[in-house]
Amino acid sequence: MFEFELIKESKECKARLGKIKTNHGEIETPIFMPVGTRATVKTMTPEELKEIEAQIILSNTYHLFLKPGTDIIKEAGGLHKFMNWDKPILTDSGGFQVFSLSDNRKITEEGVEFRSHIDGSKKFLSPEISVDIQNILGSDIMMCFDECAPYPASHEYIEHSMNRTTRWAKRCKEHHKNTDNQALFGIIQGGMYKDLRRQSAEALVEFDFPGYAVGGLSVGEPLELMNEVLDYTTDYMPKDKPRYLMGVGTPDYLFEAVERGIDMADCVLPTRIARNGTVMTSSGKLVIKNGKYKSDFTPLDSECDCYVCKNYSRAYIRHLFNVDEILGLRLATIHNLHFLITLMKNIRESIKNDNFLEFKDDFYGKYGYNS
Amino acid sequence: MFEFELIKESKECKARLGKIKTNHGEIETPIFMPVGTRATVKTMTPEELKEIEAQIILSNTYHLFLKPGTDIIKEAGGLHKFMNWDKPILTDSGGFQVFSLSDNRKITEEGVEFRSHIDGSKKFLSPEISVDIQNILGSDIMMCFDECAPYPASHEYIEHSMNRTTRWAKRCKEHHKNTDNQALFGIIQGGMYKDLRRQSAEALVEFDFPGYAVGGLSVGEPLELMNEVLDYTTDYMPKDKPRYLMGVGTPDYLFEAVERGIDMADCVLPTRIARNGTVMTSSGKLVIKNGKYKSDFTPLDSECDCYVCKNYSRAYIRHLFNVDEILGLRLATIHNLHFLITLMKNIRESIKNDNFLEFKDDFYGKYGYNS
Repeated sequence: MFEFELIKESKECKARLGKIKTNHGEIETPIFMPVGTRATVKTMTPEELKEIEAQIILSNTYHLFLKPGTDIIKEAGGLHKFMNWDKPILTDSGGFQVFSLSDNRKITEEGVEFRSHIDGSKKFLSPEISVDIQNILGSDIMMCFDECAPYPASHEYIEHSMNRTTRWAKRCKEHHKNTDNQALFGIIQGGMYKDLRRQSAEALVEFDFPGYAVGGLSVGEPLELMNEVLDYTTDYMPKDKPRYLMGVGTPDYLFEAVERGIDMADCVLPTRIARNGTVMTSSGKLVIKNGKYKSDFTPLDSECDCYVCKNYSRAYIRHLFNVDEILGLRLATIHNLHFLITLMKNIRESIKNDNFLEFKDDFYGKYGYNS
Repeated sequence: MFEFELIKESKECKARLGKIKTNHGEIETPIFMPVGTRATVKTMTPEELKEIEAQIILSNTYHLFLKPGTDIIKEAGGLHKFMNWDKPILTDSGGFQVFSLSDNRKITEEGVEFRSHIDGSKKFLSPEISVDIQNILGSDIMMCFDECAPYPASHEYIEHSMNRTTRWAKRCKEHHKNTDNQALFGIIQGGMYKDLRRQSAEALVEFDFPGYAVGGLSVGEPLELMNEVLDYTTDYMPKDKPRYLMGVGTPDYLFEAVERGIDMADCVLPTRIARNGTVMTSSGKLVIKNGKYKSDFTPLDSECDCYVCKNYSRAYIRHLFNVDEILGLRLATIHNLHFLITLMKNIRESIKNDNFLEFKDDFYGKYGYNS
């Protein structure tokens, strides 16, 4: 089962409220999805993810393909059982990692030959193989295998790459067997070129995917340019299908994406910066290792009601980071994910109450962003 | 408040059942105490410690003295508040670490000058300073500052060292202010020499401490020798006071100690080996990284009912270790501590039922020890 219900469109902007139904539960949109690259959201248990109200997590086909390998997860009965997570999972296609992590890749029409970033061994991924792997993983939402072009790149380069992504999307769709239980999303490419985004979107919409992602953004371009591309790209996307912006996880990028009609987003950023000791608070970012917190017995964020802010002081968490204790990484991770998940919950509430733009302005002012 | 109630003495051996009452709760003995060196039991939250029924944890004066420093914990209102743990805490005196971790130590009658193992700066600990620090930490059970002699060492060396430990114990007792809330234990030294253990015990018993530890064992000597020393040493200890064997945390050492009348023990071993991927099970130790577990979908220990064994497979935990995921360290730690805490619970039950020796034999047979 996979259904998307568009509950409301904002009167103020293109923001939307929706609900996705999957075999593993419902997802209220707009939503931020924590990333569990290697079948674990780093440092966290599934129970902790549920406590902070994570509704869906993302996992990475490329990493799981290399370790533990598809055979192990098949034997386990799929990724949900393997990692003990019974809520929805979205898997990417491996496309992005093949281009960003591995060396010596050789792209042909058939697929991509690359070297494992772990042991240098030769590997091959294609649209069909990516779909096969994702069918074994048993994710609720799968992604088409795409080519991720660099930024900046010429119109000619992006056009060529985008057209291949379209042909690969067709092959993914034709190869995908488990359509009743796993929804395969198409990925719109086209770089920063309006005509190519339009061509990409129109071609993919022809294939009638149950959802569409916007790929190739948040790749180093300025926020204004991302906004511009999103502005026109979401106009080419069907209203009755979920829209997923890949790789976005700072509060401002999330606000701007939602404002332009995006329903889903993911990023390693909140968990990665947490492990470096940077936490997000209602009054901006905070580097907990900083000496000024050594005898600060207030919570990370006095407006936050997460487990961490209810039980621990900045001084204690700073101490944990200062002596390299794993509990520090855990507490910062819980807090940051709770922060973004709660932010999205409040964003949904603001869309419901038609005061999204006011909520955004207030948040930007307190967080220290320029509105 | 500090009370010890001797509930029962075994008919089979010197094993005892008891109960310690402190301001932060009761402790059923014999007990294993997890170690939280730097104000955190590595990888775990206080809630997780309670879930595995940890009744008391140990923390290290030496480490907390260096980082975050006593001033920070004083400002926090003590160690319990600082780390969010509201059950009993035992702190060691720093004596052991001064001798095992730091360089260039200079021992005088006054105390020990040493270099911090963190930054090489000069530090000084004495009986009075150790008591002052532990008073600030606010632990329920404090330890006297002692001199830890190496093994092996001559009778002359040990006698000299043991006598200093006795003089230091007197100074600790005289300096200790907060006797209503914090019980100060004496530490019996004397190496592997019966006459010295007796002298040490008799001298300390004169001071009427609320509890006594056996120090200087499990320092590299064979198990048989530890057993021999324990056999006579516990005979010199009062029956109506708790007896704590320092630094013991393997199942066999715990069984042998309890059999000889020990009530409390602590060790970093179960948490340390967990982080190296070694787990204790009812049929012996298991190195989870081993390739033979890669598609083993049974729990770590099929006889275990801990959170880890109820929810995760060996294959998954092996995968986590194989890709250096922190959740692996967490799961192995929870399991190992649960294993030892449950073992002590079962040992208490066996003492109650007068079948401790049978229980020990059964356990040794299954675990792969020679009885």
